[in-house]
Order: sequence, then structure tokens, then C-alpha cells
Amino acid sequence: MTAPFGLNEIKEALTRIRGWIHRTPIITSHQLDTLAGRKLFFKTENLQKTGSFKVRGACNAVFLEKEKNPDGPGVVTHSSGNHGQAVAYAAKCAGLACSVVVPEGTPKVKCDAIQHYGAELVFCQPSPAARKETCERIAEETGRAVIHPYDNYNVMAGQGTIALELLEEVPNLDAILVPISGGGMTSGIAVAAHHMQPSCRVYAVEPFGKMLEQSLKSKQRLWPNPPQFLNTIADAIRTQQVGELTFPVLCQFAETQVFSITDDQMVEGMRLAMERTKMVVEAASGAAVYAGVRCLEDVEPKVERVGVILCGGNVDLDQLPWIHPSTSY
Amino acid sequence: MTAPFGLNEIKEALTRIRGWIHRTPIITSHQLDTLAGRKLFFKTENLQKTGSFKVRGACNAVFLEKEKNPDGPGVVTHSSGNHGQAVAYAAKCAGLACSVVVPEGTPKVKCDAIQHYGAELVFCQPSPAARKETCERIAEETGRAVIHPYDNYNVMAGQGTIALELLEEVPNLDAILVPISGGGMTSGIAVAAHHMQPSCRVYAVEPFGKMLEQSLKSKQRLWPNPPQFLNTIADAIRTQQVGELTFPVLCQFAETQVFSITDDQMVEGMRLAMERTKMVVEAASGAAVYAGVRCLEDVEPKVERVGVILCGGNVDLDQLPWIHPSTSY
Repeated sequence: MTAPFGLNEIKEALTRIRGWIHRTPIITSHQLDTLAGRKLFFKTENLQKTGSFKVRGACNAVFLEKEKNPDGPGVVTHSSGNHGQAVAYAAKCAGLACSVVVPEGTPKVKCDAIQHYGAELVFCQPSPAARKETCERIAEETGRAVIHPYDNYNVMAGQGTIALELLEEVPNLDAILVPISGGGMTSGIAVAAHHMQPSCRVYAVEPFGKMLEQSLKSKQRLWPNPPQFLNTIADAIRTQQVGELTFPVLCQFAETQVFSITDDQMVEGMRLAMERTKMVVEAASGAAVYAGVRCLEDVEPKVERVGVILCGGNVDLDQLPWIHPSTSY
Repeated sequence: MTAPFGLNEIKEALTRIRGWIHRTPIITSHQLDTLAGRKLFFKTENLQKTGSFKVRGACNAVFLEKEKNPDGPGVVTHSSGNHGQAVAYAAKCAGLACSVVVPEGTPKVKCDAIQHYGAELVFCQPSPAARKETCERIAEETGRAVIHPYDNYNVMAGQGTIALELLEEVPNLDAILVPISGGGMTSGIAVAAHHMQPSCRVYAVEPFGKMLEQSLKSKQRLWPNPPQFLNTIADAIRTQQVGELTFPVLCQFAETQVFSITDDQMVEGMRLAMERTKMVVEAASGAAVYAGVRCLEDVEPKVERVGVILCGGNVDLDQLPWIHPSTSY
């Protein structure tokens, strides 16, 4: 099997979105290298437009919609988090109308961030089913294109541009560590790395309880249905199942070995990043930092030079988990 | 009067220290630009080695000591903060012995950071006089060269390299905002800007109560003696008086207008930086951010493009001021 997108699509994505996103710096920390016993290269997507990598995939998918249908009715998605902001931003850049479905009770700060980019907010019952149904109803009624957060090859190709920039600037990486939720970013990065530098292994870093490794090993979706959310502080990566479209890509291009990170470990990683690299990062990024610093000792073949994706920085500074553990856990 | 150091000394400093420091990224934030009503360019010295800009001046001064006296007895300074760490780091890079005088009761985390670079810690009574005396006694007994945190032209030239990098990468700045304590960084940046781009004005940003503007206006040191510490949360910039050597440089090259920032305003700036730029910064950096966002409306002639120095990121994440106001104020 070949993936439904390759290096060409990822390169085209970067050309398409380049003017609307940041080329994020890659930073290093001597202290963290010493702690890890290897060289870590942090790709700072927390500094990305809207505060997370999501804007890469969203821009690529939304801009392609615009090319296909310049005077079209626009786009719609459901997400109260980073993807919702990213699609709203992309639609604003493209000059397309945009609706974002969020569950009732979504914090005002998140609603404001989405509306800041001019998108229309649509509230629905707070259940996964209601969000999906509301989104599909709007798409049907208005003709707007649904921009799925990960089960969309244009989104995956957009996220792959992270690896394009990383491997261009830091060649000879032995591995890249990617926090995983639906699998769009891991898919894009794994495909890019496979073509740019086949010896570079791409590892998913998951919240404990996701059980991705078992499914990758058997190449079968072993998760319970209906889809569940994990009980983790990393609110950006709570989805247990990866996507229907991302799963086969991950089976082919990502490592079967997966690093499972507990909440306490994520918090340690988050704090290490903030203290040593001076980057404000969210818990999902902390998972990758923890894996980079603490989990690579026994990996074979040995990894010496490791890319670590700091996927986002949208964290509530009033609720840092080491300060209010009782409310955040 | 010409300054005792010029652009040549600053360029030489950069050549000398380049291999031992980071060229820190310059970042922008569309949201903060909108809030400020102008373009802000943040120079991220919080990402610098040891977590603050201090390492530039320290490396330049210590490496020059090494050139002068390769097998010499080393260096000594007094500082429990960023300068102490910076001199310890510079001495380690140069292969010189180093003593750092700190007051009894200095938190263990700061002592550890200095010792991490192999410097010898010397404790003294917790008074400005005792620190100075202990430092001078060690210099006399051991022959070690005293590296003053700001009243040293090599230190000033080293700090000037910040402006060299900033103006090279972002030309046509109308102004640069620099948090000020003893005045070493402001002096270096003002001299560099004066030569590289004479139309670029360099403004000091001070903690409320420092009263620098009155002294600059009259070109006289109007401060009370003996020297006092200001009561501010910005522990990196508590010194009220600027240096004997920096003052004339500031009178000649910096703007007479000074921005005075209260603790509450610094906290607002610090939080804006962390939320919008995802940079962990200390309160002194927050002062410059606040000035950039809130204080430039009435400045004449108008400033459109402004450099903001994020001078350091060494902050206690257990004691963020908006979370524990009672212990930090």
C-alpha cells in the first residue's frame, strides 16, 4: 500500500500555507540533553499561529476548499479546542465563511478565541454524537465543507510540514516523538520522515490508557465502541481511538512501539519544558518532553538525536497542574 | 564625549562570544500588535544560555580576562541571581576558576544553578556592603579579576550584541524598550543602536520608584545615598541607582524619557507574554512588554516598529505572581 498522500503533497502544502503560518524555531537545551543522555531538538509549535500546530492542517485543507470553490459557502467543523481556532483562523485567511460547533458550557475564553477570527459559534448538547450531528446538519443545510480534525488527507499533509521544516534544519535525526490523539500529526510526520530520511523512526506518544500499541501490533482496531474519551489532564489529546483514515497510515509508517505517559509524567515533562526551555506548553507537549527525557534508554537501535514536537501552548495559567492539582487532575 | 566603547567593540564582542551563546529568535504576536496598535518584535533573551541576557556581557568580560591572562587565577563576582550564573557559565567555558559571593539565605535552587557550572560559592552577611567587601577581599587574596555586573565596559559591549542581532534581523525599528537595573544592557544597546541606526530611540523601562528620568534630565545623580533597593517583584532589577560608568553613557545615548512600571503592570505584561507569545518570562521582561503594549500612545515622534527585550525567563513556577499575590508582592 502507498499512502494517499506523499512527500509531494506535503511540499505543496508548505508552499500553500507558508505565508500564513510561522516557521517555528527549533530550540535546544544543554540541561535537558544532559538529563536525557542524548540530543533533543524541540520544534516549537507552541509558538505557531493560534498557539498550536493545528493551523497547518487546517490552512491546507481550507485553502484547498477555497481553490476548488472560490465563492463557495465556506467550511464547518466541531471542536472547542485548538482545531476549532485553527479552522476559524484558516477561513479568515481564505476569506471563507466558517461555523464552529462547540458544546454548551465551553469556557468563554475558548469561545472568544474562535469568534476573534470571525467564525460563527454554534452550540450543541455536550456529547460526541450531538457535536457530529450538528456539524453534519449545518454542512447539509448550508453546503459548507466539513473540515475533520484528522481524518482528512489534506489535514494530514498539512501537519506533515512540521517534519519538512524539522528535517531540513536538523538532518540525521534518529527519531521524532509526536503526541498523538486522532493521529493526523503523527501520520503527516511519519510519511514525511519516511520519504525524507527513511532511517528516522517516528514514535507516537500517548496518554496512558489509549492502548495504541496493541492495535498497531495487530493492525486491527481493538478499541471499545462507542469511542471513548480518556481521563487525562491533556485535554488536547483525550480521544482514545485514532481515525479510520489515519490508522492505516500509522500502521505503515509509524513505529509499532508507543510511549504511554501518565498524567504525573506529563506534568513533569510540562514543567521541565517551562523551566529549562522557557516555553509555555500544554500537557500534550509535556508528554513528548517526558518521553524524550525519560523513556529512550532501552530503545533499540539506539537513538542519539531526537526531534520532540512541542505541539501547543494553550494552557490556562491560572490552573497550572502543579499548583492546583485538585482541580486539574 | 564619545563612549569608551563603540560599534567595533560590540562587533568584536559578538565574534568572541558567538560560539558560547544562542542567537535568540525574534518573535512576533499578531494579537499583541493589535492590542498595542503597532508592530512589536520580541528579542527572546529568556531563551539565552543560563536563562538571561547576562551571559553575553559575562562571556565577553571573562573571555577578555582569559586572553589577557590565560593561566591567571580566575574571576570573582557577587550576585545570587542571573549575573552570578552567567559569570559561572562564562568561567566554565573559558576554563577559569570562579568564585561567586552570595548572601546567606540564598535559595538552594539559585546556589545549585551557580554550582552546576563548577563555580565556588562564598557566603557572606546579607547586606550590600558585606557582598562588596567579601568580593574585594577574595580578589585581593587570590588575584582574581572582579567582574562587575554593569560598571564594566566589556560587560556593556557584550550586552550591546543584543541590538546587533536585533537590528540586523529587523531593520527600521523606531524604538527599543529595555528593562533597566544597573544600566549595562541599556548602555550597550543604546550605543549599538546609535551607530547602526541613529533614528532608533532606546528607552529604559524601570520599576516605579527608580526615578531615573529626573537624573537623566539633569544629567546629575539625584538618588539618595547609600544606594537602596526598590520594593518590586522584579527581583532582577531592584537596584535603584544605575552605575557610575553606565550613567554617562545613558545620558548621551539613551532617551531621557523613561517608562515607570508598577508591580501590577509588570504582572500584566508578564502574563500577556506568557499567554500570547508562549514565552516564560520574569517580571523585568514583563515591564518591557507592558511598556510596549500600553505606554507608547503619546510618544512623539510616533513609534510604529518597536523592539522589546525579553531579558530573562528565570521565574519560580510555584510562585507566579497572579497565583500567590500574597507571597510575591
